Amino acid sequence: MATKRRGDVLLPVIDVAATAVFALEGALTAIAAQLDLFGVLVVGVVTATAGGIIRDLLIGDIPPASIRHARYLVAALTAGAIAVLFHQLVNETPAWLLTGLDAAGLSLFAVAGASKALDFGSSEVMAAVMGTITGVGGGTVRDLLVGEVPAILRIDVYAVAALTGAVVLVILTTAGSPRWAAMTTGAAACFALRVAAATLDWNLPVPGR
Amino acid sequence: MATKRRGDVLLPVIDVAATAVFALEGALTAIAAQLDLFGVLVVGVVTATAGGIIRDLLIGDIPPASIRHARYLVAALTAGAIAVLFHQLVNETPAWLLTGLDAAGLSLFAVAGASKALDFGSSEVMAAVMGTITGVGGGTVRDLLVGEVPAILRIDVYAVAALTGAVVLVILTTAGSPRWAAMTTGAAACFALRVAAATLDWNLPVPGR
Amino acid sequence: MATKRRGDVLLPVIDVAATAVFALEGALTAIAAQLDLFGVLVVGVVTATAGGIIRDLLIGDIPPASIRHARYLVAALTAGAIAVLFHQLVNETPAWLLTGLDAAGLSLFAVAGASKALDFGSSEVMAAVMGTITGVGGGTVRDLLVGEVPAILRIDVYAVAALTGAVVLVILTTAGSPRWAAMTTGAAACFALRVAAATLDWNLPVPGR
Repeated sequence: MATKRRGDVLLPVIDVAATAVFALEGALTAIAAQLDLFGVLVVGVVTATAGGIIRDLLIGDIPPASIRHARYLVAALTAGAIAVLFHQLVNETPAWLLTGLDAAGLSLFAVAGASKALDFGSSEVMAAVMGTITGVGGGTVRDLLVGEVPAILRIDVYAVAALTGAVVLVILTTAGSPRWAAMTTGAAACFALRVAAATLDWNLPVPGR
Repeated sequence: MATKRRGDVLLPVIDVAATAVFALEGALTAIAAQLDLFGVLVVGVVTATAGGIIRDLLIGDIPPASIRHARYLVAALTAGAIAVLFHQLVNETPAWLLTGLDAAGLSLFAVAGASKALDFGSSEVMAAVMGTITGVGGGTVRDLLVGEVPAILRIDVYAVAALTGAVVLVILTTAGSPRWAAMTTGAAACFALRVAAATLDWNLPVPGR
Repeated sequence: MATKRRGDVLLPVIDVAATAVFALEGALTAIAAQLDLFGVLVVGVVTATAGGIIRDLLIGDIPPASIRHARYLVAALTAGAIAVLFHQLVNETPAWLLTGLDAAGLSLFAVAGASKALDFGSSEVMAAVMGTITGVGGGTVRDLLVGEVPAILRIDVYAVAALTGAVVLVILTTAGSPRWAAMTTGAAACFALRVAAATLDWNLPVPGR
């Protein structure tokens, strides 16, 4: 079964790409928080891998995939090194490009996480939760490490986009759709919602206000 | 053995009730911290489930019970929704009622957690630790998420009450008492100590002062 | 295999000693942060055990060693109690002695953690990462609990020393060196680098400055 999941050639490639994007963002956050070189690389790696590690511990895939396979660490460290070397350049990257990359990473993590949870026997509801955790777990731990209340708990529809993508994947898969179609549709839904929210400045209501 | 533990009809009912109480409190904390709708629901769910999840990871019951069974998530989300809809009403609830509900939740989590750890082969000492973690873990993670030093590390005898309940359960069980008697006595001890501490404003000494 | 690892008489002794040193430091930090008695003991235990627990969850040794064996808890609580009773005395301990003790604890945790990861089938790269996590994980969680950005992300070469010790152990072990020789050399490298950095005030560059 594991072999079958790994049979997909494209998925690991996209997975590593998403890891690199998240590590780049994490490292830039750490640079802004004036952490030292080691701290920047660690926060990059943690941002890229914590969501998947938490998911794997919860669904029982132990050791977690990003501990078993060095490619995630290599991708995250490379992206972190790029952030260190070129952070002034990266900071000049247009916002729409960074948002697009981040939305792509979030989309993939959300559908890949939900898909993996289904493979490990999670119920439909829990698979959707696991997809969301995969997408937003890394950013949550990153914010805790630099001493901030996690952004996903405070602002915009970031986590809701991940949840939407995961729910779409679970519904389509349960309805008998092939996995690739469910993943593509789920990822597209997450991507569209995330980009629309960022562009149109959508935010969830704040009950205490 | 799992069947036998699940054979008890009452325990899951109380367990779900305690989950709802803790989720309600977590959501109210999140509303006070001005988190958005998603953040409020997440903090509610995390407050209600993190203690049990940490315990299950540590004793090796993976996937954790609240990941395997959707009822905990449903109970926590329902309580969180109630907090969102009626938080002004809930904030007018008399303090003694909230303290009583919280003490009931804490008591059940502490004895249920210690009991489960014994079933999974933990030593007596570790079962008492696991009961305490089950009771206070959720509140600890909640405080970290909203950017505060966990209350249980700073104030009153909250965690000590959980530890007391767990220790009573472990001693009675080891002495041959039936589980239901050990659980009832342990829960009563935890409840009494917690309510007395809240009423009489008992606090532990602060070594650094 | 587990028996063989435990066959070493010296290792558990040093392991418990390192646990006590880390617990003492954690408890002193908690006293300075004005936590109450329970909080001080908890932060002491967490500082001493969290690194090993995270490592064990990630490599799949569940329940973690410090949950299975009460000696770590006993050592940490004893050290915490000493911190509570004699913290004014301990605060007058010369800095070089505390740095030396801390460097000793860090060195042992780093090489023991990397060694254990190799025994559990981790790759060379991941074993080095696991050694580093074992050494610095406890201090990271301690800092989060008292509301600070983890020191290892901000200052000096602390974590780099742990990584160096773990890398030396992995290289020597892979090259066929007996485990005790690899551990001694790795620990010496970590110890020397840590003490040199503290004495000469070495710090890593801060990319954002």
